[in-house]
Amino acid sequence: MHVTNIVNGVDVDRLAGTIEHISADPTLADFQFRAHNRWIDGGHNRTTIKGFYGAGQEDASRTEPFVLDADEPPLLLGQNKGPNAGEYLLQALAACLTGTIVYHAAARGIVLDGLECTIEGEADLQGFLGLDETVRPGFQQIRVAFEATGDFDDDQLAELAQLASYSPVRDTVSNPVPVAIEVVRA
Amino acid sequence: MHVTNIVNGVDVDRLAGTIEHISADPTLADFQFRAHNRWIDGGHNRTTIKGFYGAGQEDASRTEPFVLDADEPPLLLGQNKGPNAGEYLLQALAACLTGTIVYHAAARGIVLDGLECTIEGEADLQGFLGLDETVRPGFQQIRVAFEATGDFDDDQLAELAQLASYSPVRDTVSNPVPVAIEVVRA
Repeated sequence: MHVTNIVNGVDVDRLAGTIEHISADPTLADFQFRAHNRWIDGGHNRTTIKGFYGAGQEDASRTEPFVLDADEPPLLLGQNKGPNAGEYLLQALAACLTGTIVYHAAARGIVLDGLECTIEGEADLQGFLGLDETVRPGFQQIRVAFEATGDFDDDQLAELAQLASYSPVRDTVSNPVPVAIEVVRA
Repeated sequence: MHVTNIVNGVDVDRLAGTIEHISADPTLADFQFRAHNRWIDGGHNRTTIKGFYGAGQEDASRTEPFVLDADEPPLLLGQNKGPNAGEYLLQALAACLTGTIVYHAAARGIVLDGLECTIEGEADLQGFLGLDETVRPGFQQIRVAFEATGDFDDDQLAELAQLASYSPVRDTVSNPVPVAIEVVRA
């Protein structure tokens, strides 16, 4: 009889299998994620996300693209047709920390009932506007406050915060990533 | 007679007014953006985004929150209920670069007809899984390829790529941002 071993909604047997496959062939760990963005008007633009490369092949699991609109609020000369890019960055970081904690907790047998967080990012618009070259355009600091419930002791509670170090977006935001940008005529 | 001065869908008179106000009182440039994330199950979690602080007050322009679902594809033990966090990060960066180029081009009188980009990010899953401590969990590199159309000469085309330096999310990804994370019991 095969008993499926699900912890926190994560199939830990499949997770262990993934780790085993990658340990045997590390090239399976190479992933490329992608998005396509099209400007619509003013602060409004639209992104589509569908395919990616991973585990040695193009993924074909998504039959339709995800479509995401970004815009600015009226205060920043937009029309609120979507969150703005800074808010999407915070969403990416919050979602990544949540997923990372859930998966790694599952692998360690830490059972969660609930996990919520509020994320806040501080920015000084003088950087974006180019009014003061000593002010960075990006976030100056970001704070994430999680509340967790579940069947864990105080040592495991402390462990949950440590698991954040495995988060890909946390690493991407905390440490430098090279970004190459080119603009050509269509 | 008042003639509204719109370039690239951006009201450049209002943009100039914003710059004037902030130059007179730089505290108006302090912004705080926020998101709230709630884990649902496995790789699936949901973010709501509504209020923010800026220009000296809480913004009240959004009557309903934006709701964004994140999940993993089946290959990464999810059910494709949304893009994953790494894809949201790429979307945030693409949207920010697009908006930044559009706004700064408008301020310089560079008229765009179209702006599209494809963004690609490379990651090695060994970092996320903790299989090799020399491999970072985050993106190792990101490439953004823009195609622009409009009424601009070659010098202005080259200028468009330079404008990316003002992008808040580009700065957030390219350079370190302190991220403080706490986990407490609910």
